[in-house]
Amino acid sequence: MRQFSVELDELHEKILQMGGYVESAIHRSVRALVDRDAELARQVLRDEARINQMEIEIDNLTTRLFALRQPMAKDLRFLTAALKINTDLERMGDLAVNIAQRALSLVAQSPVKPLIDIPRMAQLVESMLLRVLDAFVKGDADVARGVLLADDEVDALRDSVYTELVAYMQNDPTTVPGAVDLMFVARNLERIADHATNIAEDVVFLVKGVDVRHHAMEAKDA
Amino acid sequence: MRQFSVELDELHEKILQMGGYVESAIHRSVRALVDRDAELARQVLRDEARINQMEIEIDNLTTRLFALRQPMAKDLRFLTAALKINTDLERMGDLAVNIAQRALSLVAQSPVKPLIDIPRMAQLVESMLLRVLDAFVKGDADVARGVLLADDEVDALRDSVYTELVAYMQNDPTTVPGAVDLMFVARNLERIADHATNIAEDVVFLVKGVDVRHHAMEAKDA
Repeated sequence: MRQFSVELDELHEKILQMGGYVESAIHRSVRALVDRDAELARQVLRDEARINQMEIEIDNLTTRLFALRQPMAKDLRFLTAALKINTDLERMGDLAVNIAQRALSLVAQSPVKPLIDIPRMAQLVESMLLRVLDAFVKGDADVARGVLLADDEVDALRDSVYTELVAYMQNDPTTVPGAVDLMFVARNLERIADHATNIAEDVVFLVKGVDVRHHAMEAKDA
Repeated sequence: MRQFSVELDELHEKILQMGGYVESAIHRSVRALVDRDAELARQVLRDEARINQMEIEIDNLTTRLFALRQPMAKDLRFLTAALKINTDLERMGDLAVNIAQRALSLVAQSPVKPLIDIPRMAQLVESMLLRVLDAFVKGDADVARGVLLADDEVDALRDSVYTELVAYMQNDPTTVPGAVDLMFVARNLERIADHATNIAEDVVFLVKGVDVRHHAMEAKDA
């Protein structure tokens, strides 16, 4: 039994390490964008392999624990949550890579506009990821629920980014390629926030045993 | 033992049913777009609850089977694959909803351009989903590998859609809002294809016990 808890700790640790890699990728991809730093963007591309490798390790470890142990109740919820969180983190890493690619494309063009809302979105999104990892560490469902609320703010920022970029494109056709890149950056940040939300739901499920996806209770009543 | 195999069949059946719902959502969202049919788009939005409900049922059933049984080897791989495939299908459903929302936005504007590449992308993507569900049913790794190859074709079509739409926006600023909607439709179709690819990788893993994500073997050598 002690041995199993050691393995669960190892899994826990690996997920946090993966979260750290992903957080760093997001942070550097946005800094590359804001500072027009191609080398930093390329670093994010190079480091993707590490995240992918980690995803496979976590999956293998989780599957082994399912197989060798007969997890019940909370341990079972932890293992299923681990599989899901792992997938969400890996997708966030992919999205950071997409942002880095857009940064490389933007470095090669004249700047479209001063970047204000996108760095703000990035800050919010990074904070969501850090808080949800913290909620996961502490098993704190309230912190996780706070992350769910932040998602609306991210969506509002994305809407204002879109509206502004459409205006730029309409007023000055030469801005179209760069504005399109920036739209996809905003979209990728929004999706990173969605993945943080998924993880928050998994943490609530893990801690409380309650499924808060899709307002699960309402769906069942429908 | 017989009872467990009945439950596994039930899970199998539910995943296929979910796949059918998702396929129908994708098909109708693109038809709504092409035919400028707002009512059809709204139908896709209404039917999302059914997909979400199904996701929860499949997760619950899978988790119960993990807990009550002590699955080994292939059954274990089947249950972990079921969790992952379920998540991918649900995300595909979300993306179909996004396409339906873009269709509603586009119905309210004058047409930007005749739609050629987007319906072709949609056809390819739907075929990928149907083939990967078929590979899952038959446990056929070769069919699954075929789906992995189709992804490049989808990416090439997306690139040509982007290039064309950028040209439209640059030549005629009034097309910007509609062209942006169409770009996101292409992006959503590409992401649906990515999810089909994920499922194909899960099917290969399920059948062969080999992990083909991120060229897993190469990553381990690196």
